[in-house]
Amino acid sequence: MTDLWLIGVGMGAPGHLTLEGRQALRDAAAVLLPRKGPEKSDLADLRLAILRESGSAAEVISFDMPVRDETLPYAERVERWHDAIAERWTAAIAGARPAGPVALMVWGDPGLYDSTLRIADRLRPRPRVRVVPGVTALQALTAAHAIPFNTVGGSVLVTTGRRLREGGWPGGAETAAVMLDGACAFAGLPPEGLRIWWGAFLGMAEQVLDAGPLAEAGPRIVATRAAARARHGWIMDTYLLRRG
Amino acid sequence: MTDLWLIGVGMGAPGHLTLEGRQALRDAAAVLLPRKGPEKSDLADLRLAILRESGSAAEVISFDMPVRDETLPYAERVERWHDAIAERWTAAIAGARPAGPVALMVWGDPGLYDSTLRIADRLRPRPRVRVVPGVTALQALTAAHAIPFNTVGGSVLVTTGRRLREGGWPGGAETAAVMLDGACAFAGLPPEGLRIWWGAFLGMAEQVLDAGPLAEAGPRIVATRAAARARHGWIMDTYLLRRG
Repeated sequence: MTDLWLIGVGMGAPGHLTLEGRQALRDAAAVLLPRKGPEKSDLADLRLAILRESGSAAEVISFDMPVRDETLPYAERVERWHDAIAERWTAAIAGARPAGPVALMVWGDPGLYDSTLRIADRLRPRPRVRVVPGVTALQALTAAHAIPFNTVGGSVLVTTGRRLREGGWPGGAETAAVMLDGACAFAGLPPEGLRIWWGAFLGMAEQVLDAGPLAEAGPRIVATRAAARARHGWIMDTYLLRRG
Repeated sequence: MTDLWLIGVGMGAPGHLTLEGRQALRDAAAVLLPRKGPEKSDLADLRLAILRESGSAAEVISFDMPVRDETLPYAERVERWHDAIAERWTAAIAGARPAGPVALMVWGDPGLYDSTLRIADRLRPRPRVRVVPGVTALQALTAAHAIPFNTVGGSVLVTTGRRLREGGWPGGAETAAVMLDGACAFAGLPPEGLRIWWGAFLGMAEQVLDAGPLAEAGPRIVATRAAARARHGWIMDTYLLRRG
């Protein structure tokens, strides 16, 4: 394998796929897909549905995702997990011997809070990597609420739930866009003067939205999120917080 | 007019258009397009080419962009300009009387450093606004360089050239993504420990890229940018700076 294509496919709405992404899925010789886990089978099905709708005839190469060692410290846990995924990719591709480019379908955009580029960096020999941009959770969120990402000439801090929880509201920030938050870090902020725009399953049929002053909307979102997560067995969500 | 669709069309590559964006262009009754200015006629042509390639048969409603009053202070100048654009839209639409949704084609994504949502807010009666997300300059940049937007679990400050010039390197930031920089604000930073990834005309045939330690790549980019701008008469560029 000499060519690895990382294709951003958006957030699950078939319409998020770009024309470039669709063509890349059609031109790839094979698509490397994680096998269904027990919890996120909706996502595995959705990826296959997007692939089929794209008109691609690429061979599907499946691999099992390794399990993270939760006893390790965060940074080391992530490093070892990426090593293990790279080994699974290598073995799966070696078994299938595709005759051309191998594609990976990435939720959102391969550049934004995604590990695929870092895992690809571990492959030896190093493949030629092509990245096809895709619609991110942040764009699906601001589009669903029909709000701008930034104020006029203002800056936006794109950050994680972990950082927001550990560091509080980032000093000087006007807007914060929060990714990878599994535990409602917004609920730990003093809500005065903050507004939240939240969304889960963005772009999918199950999409849920809420927005308002954090003091009122925050507790509502915590409850909605818990209920939606219980119903689906998993959740993908993101939010934007703005001062004033 | 009761429905206004703001459609992100990406950065100029026809492949950036999403399937949802293409369908929306086809479903719109009319597309509201600014007439060619003397300088940016490449962009006006490109927009028409994307519209034609989408298979849309929507009526094209043209309007002339008003001129900004450069004697006003920044915030007021922008406010008055948006007011003036809203008036032009209103007049153009009233003249054409489209029988269905009116679409606007927005470079990148309608949420990210774009005024279209704010101008739409000025229309009376208020239209129902639909936003279709599109590939942004930041995604086209990170895809072209095949780099991640963020470090593992790290945050990214999305900011403007003006803020970087006035405020210097943002305290505590690991990565800064810079938009709307007409004057190479990176050249005013102490370059030690900073790396830059720069791109202009991202996704277009004219795409130019450069990257490296800021001390070395910075002066090179200033020169490349000036030459590219002189050659085309205009430039659209963006960059990412990262510590360490």
